[in-house]
Amino acid sequence: MDKQLRQELFEQAQEWMLEAGERIREKIDDPRSIETKSNPNDLVTEMDRNTEQFFAEKIKETYPDHLLFGEEGLGDEIEDLAGTVWIVDPIDGTMNFVHQKRNFAISVGIYVEGEGEIGFIYDVMDDILYSAKKGEGAKKNGKDLPQLNAERPLHESILAFNTTWLLPENPHVDHQGMQKLIKHLRSTRSYGSAALELAYVAEGIIDGYLTMSLMPWDIAAGIILIKEAGGTVARADGKDLDMLTKTTLLASRANIHEEIISEYVTLKK
Amino acid sequence: MDKQLRQELFEQAQEWMLEAGERIREKIDDPRSIETKSNPNDLVTEMDRNTEQFFAEKIKETYPDHLLFGEEGLGDEIEDLAGTVWIVDPIDGTMNFVHQKRNFAISVGIYVEGEGEIGFIYDVMDDILYSAKKGEGAKKNGKDLPQLNAERPLHESILAFNTTWLLPENPHVDHQGMQKLIKHLRSTRSYGSAALELAYVAEGIIDGYLTMSLMPWDIAAGIILIKEAGGTVARADGKDLDMLTKTTLLASRANIHEEIISEYVTLKK
Repeated sequence: MDKQLRQELFEQAQEWMLEAGERIREKIDDPRSIETKSNPNDLVTEMDRNTEQFFAEKIKETYPDHLLFGEEGLGDEIEDLAGTVWIVDPIDGTMNFVHQKRNFAISVGIYVEGEGEIGFIYDVMDDILYSAKKGEGAKKNGKDLPQLNAERPLHESILAFNTTWLLPENPHVDHQGMQKLIKHLRSTRSYGSAALELAYVAEGIIDGYLTMSLMPWDIAAGIILIKEAGGTVARADGKDLDMLTKTTLLASRANIHEEIISEYVTLKK
Repeated sequence: MDKQLRQELFEQAQEWMLEAGERIREKIDDPRSIETKSNPNDLVTEMDRNTEQFFAEKIKETYPDHLLFGEEGLGDEIEDLAGTVWIVDPIDGTMNFVHQKRNFAISVGIYVEGEGEIGFIYDVMDDILYSAKKGEGAKKNGKDLPQLNAERPLHESILAFNTTWLLPENPHVDHQGMQKLIKHLRSTRSYGSAALELAYVAEGIIDGYLTMSLMPWDIAAGIILIKEAGGTVARADGKDLDMLTKTTLLASRANIHEEIISEYVTLKK
């Protein structure tokens, strides 16, 4: 993609990200938003749909040849990544939205002919916008993020991790490998939003994020951020990601990626 | 403790909390702070000591008959909780301080004849001060925190939880009970600071926090906050906490506390 075109698209998308976030903040801070709902899940459902609808309308109006591939299914039917596709998770971290009213994000990745060109992860309540342009680095609130450390060993690393992978009956991954990994790491964290956990890897405040079951809209933006920060992203078996289906994922600093996969991760299927 | 006296002490302690936080922020934002250190742990060690020293000096100057019981051991030798004792963790979440430069807290609990009278947990980088006075409720940045929900069942609850309790070889708790608990809960989180995790329970953004090995300064303030918010705090075997020694702890909304202990927690010793 031409650099000038990418920049124009970036600026437009950024404006919409901030506007969509502002709308969510207004709604969540309005006491009537909760009072008029019979249960708190109704608010997140409404905000999820409204936010995706907002992007769908803006995109159709401004870029009629672009497609939207979103969690709520309000965009287009996508069978491949030909053309320009906006991959949108309107609210990533639904459970945090409901229980915490914070620690959720809007995630938007813009892909052109299958290549991730622009990524945004917006921590709405803290007003922190992570962004990246292909070949031009990643930023946090407009400030360059440094390249990730490529030397710190695995035993000094902190991984974001879902506790259920440690259970013998989890359907995805051999729990003994996971238990061995936990013992080797410095520590684990769990924040409840895949998009934010990917942003934290790009920022270098956690060293990796391992997960067994995510959809393309959960990861489309994060992948671009992490690559631009010098990290590595692949399926949890080390193979290339497929941006059209549910997937496993390991995103981490480059020097620990292969070690985690070869020494600790044995997928069950 | 007399209400007027408590209020005066609260205001003085609050002023010192904010000043101590400001000093840490200045230091952490100064690029020379890291550059002049041979390793990043040296900065946190220095800030830990400086912050406790700051409280030790202020207290000795203003309240010469008060005692300080702190992580760094710069205060007094404490054998019981007679008199007025400030229980201080100058930086709770050391690993977050080093790896993230955020998500750590100053924790100060003021105990009079063994009773928790005043508690502060200060999320330094986000400038969020949680506070509580005995019998007068808990606040976040000066705004009252509502009483915790006392009806939501355990299977709709989110617990802050250390992944290592799921490993068979952990020395503290039967891992099978922990695995059963994980399957029953809605989800788990892990933030890497006991003080902040206790503040989040008081705030109601997580439903509980279970841990197997904490020191009095990790929990002294959080206990007061949670009680004032209507939650329950005890050892993980349900017995009363001892504020002088290392301890297990379960802090949660009141209606799920006994169920977690009786159905899921079997301590190894």
